[in-house]
Amino acid sequence: MDTSLFKFDLIATEKHARAGVFHTPHGDLLTPVFAPVGTQATVKAVTPTQLTEIGASLVLANTYHLYLRPGADLVAEMGGLHEFMRWSNPMLTDSGGYQVFSLAATRKVDADGVTFKSHIDGSTHRFTPESSVQIQEKLGADIIMAFDECADPNNAVYISESMQRTHVWAERCLKAKSRPDQALFGIVQGGISPELRTQSAQFIASLDFPGHAIGGLSVGETKPEMHAMLEVVNGILPENKPRYLMGVGSPEDLINGILRGVDIFDCVLPTRLARHAAAFTPTGRINLMNASYTHDHSPIDATCTCYACRNFTRAYLRHLVVAKEMLAATLISIHNIQFLVTLVKSARQAILENRFETLAGEFLQSYQPRPTQGEG
Amino acid sequence: MDTSLFKFDLIATEKHARAGVFHTPHGDLLTPVFAPVGTQATVKAVTPTQLTEIGASLVLANTYHLYLRPGADLVAEMGGLHEFMRWSNPMLTDSGGYQVFSLAATRKVDADGVTFKSHIDGSTHRFTPESSVQIQEKLGADIIMAFDECADPNNAVYISESMQRTHVWAERCLKAKSRPDQALFGIVQGGISPELRTQSAQFIASLDFPGHAIGGLSVGETKPEMHAMLEVVNGILPENKPRYLMGVGSPEDLINGILRGVDIFDCVLPTRLARHAAAFTPTGRINLMNASYTHDHSPIDATCTCYACRNFTRAYLRHLVVAKEMLAATLISIHNIQFLVTLVKSARQAILENRFETLAGEFLQSYQPRPTQGEG
Repeated sequence: MDTSLFKFDLIATEKHARAGVFHTPHGDLLTPVFAPVGTQATVKAVTPTQLTEIGASLVLANTYHLYLRPGADLVAEMGGLHEFMRWSNPMLTDSGGYQVFSLAATRKVDADGVTFKSHIDGSTHRFTPESSVQIQEKLGADIIMAFDECADPNNAVYISESMQRTHVWAERCLKAKSRPDQALFGIVQGGISPELRTQSAQFIASLDFPGHAIGGLSVGETKPEMHAMLEVVNGILPENKPRYLMGVGSPEDLINGILRGVDIFDCVLPTRLARHAAAFTPTGRINLMNASYTHDHSPIDATCTCYACRNFTRAYLRHLVVAKEMLAATLISIHNIQFLVTLVKSARQAILENRFETLAGEFLQSYQPRPTQGEG
Repeated sequence: MDTSLFKFDLIATEKHARAGVFHTPHGDLLTPVFAPVGTQATVKAVTPTQLTEIGASLVLANTYHLYLRPGADLVAEMGGLHEFMRWSNPMLTDSGGYQVFSLAATRKVDADGVTFKSHIDGSTHRFTPESSVQIQEKLGADIIMAFDECADPNNAVYISESMQRTHVWAERCLKAKSRPDQALFGIVQGGISPELRTQSAQFIASLDFPGHAIGGLSVGETKPEMHAMLEVVNGILPENKPRYLMGVGSPEDLINGILRGVDIFDCVLPTRLARHAAAFTPTGRINLMNASYTHDHSPIDATCTCYACRNFTRAYLRHLVVAKEMLAATLISIHNIQFLVTLVKSARQAILENRFETLAGEFLQSYQPRPTQGEG
């Protein structure tokens, strides 16, 4: 690999929090960074132009979904994901592992890989570490992920087995990789066991990955458990490579992740919530279906500069939600993505100015969290 | 009424075709003009900014829908439709008549008005000429419409009765109107009878309307019948006022309407078709669901400058359609609206240059029409 394409510069730190720059073939990522999710090669209900206006710099797409539809060969034939969906900034694909393991009833794991059935038509397919890398090479994202197993964190015996398998697969992924213009990240697993997480972080860090991910969190464990695992893992992962917390998360998760040394996040939360009329504000989520907004002349968040908040009242957005108009999902998605992207950018700026701990404390005090959804 | 707010300047004619400027409080409409439809105070799946980029200058909203939800009082309280949906260019509302009469099973007409049941919750409501004008004054569009009855064109006896009622109601609407910053258009009815259309056009033209509409077409009659009625009516309506053909239409209908002296059009067709994956091209409609586009690297229409055609392949759009992604409706709606808006703008330019008949002949020869949907 031409590592110069993916240099990571650590610019500033404040305790464990880090501000950096991750160089990629499609531009520099200023970290910490939050990536909205474009599962099927589109961030749902939002155009690439709107994403650019929001200030998003990294978009994630899902290998499992794109492998099934429209197929990795078609994406490759169309010039790769960037060209296909017209996103010229950095992209990331997951390995397909998380989605495949979510299909608990219809998949079978063996030492070599996983056999599973398509959620679309029930047809049988198989992923191995090698095929996952090959598919991701066809998709062509800047950052690609090792094929791992994301196991139930509360099943201690199985977690250990699956972690061992994930380690073997990580080495196989490294060997299978052939494109010099993609960075393959290794994934730390180990559930909620400090011992297993330590083992996993040490093993993954010992391989030659240009970046590391923390998988298997935000999948049902408690917040203190998640925070403890982040502290264990980030205490071991090398400082000179970016750290990606997969499938996270909510505003409070982002702040708590940055406090513990995470650089990259992704989550479907902002767009999924938007399709259910829920919007982020600095004091917590609101649901625009609520009758209390019927006559509300104010925007979702008066401090927000997104397209929705610059233009539309809560009363109008509520009308769109009640009338089941697609524009509701578009406008609330724009707001929610901008809220998280801006929150993480503010965190970066605060780290540069050595005042992130203050910002984090203030944010966590005023933001009232709700139970959030899982990774993926 | 302060008629200076709504001056109509006829700039050029070519046989019956007209190029003009209709001045409104929210800006000048260059006619002929095509208005996309924003039934519930949103053009489905498209933002106002995208509409502006498309070059749309007039948007129609539906009185029946907005009266039921969110209610005209709420729209008025939010500053009127322009402010509510953030469309700063001219707007038009229909009278609610067309939708109410479409509810054939659940409405009762009498000399004074119509009683009907809401399609949302079955509750009973009543529109009269006076209440329709009052609701439209609360909504606040630049152009508002007289309350008329759009009857089955093939029922000759009923057509005559309902035309008489429409005439009485037109006078009542004129009396009920109070806002000086809105132009109330009278509507010509009369089905497919040249005699009734003549009577109706003469009567409506005799009243003091700043503009005239032709209703009751594109509701099941043949194309030759529609064209004949346009010729009868536009032969009678005064030249110094704009003429609006309601609920029309398809590309070929627009060209045929302009050839016969129509200035203003509206139709749900571009957005409704888009939600069913159908897109306009210069040679006819295509459906992007079709497997033949799976590997198609070309845009919907290589001659189109819309956002969708500048950026996305048919292969990508087909993927979005098959994957049921909302972005499909957004991108195809943008294309279809721009196709009609641009077609009508080209017609205007051709009239100014005295070559519209040539353009119309060429367009109608290369465009293969399909059966279209009704008014409304």
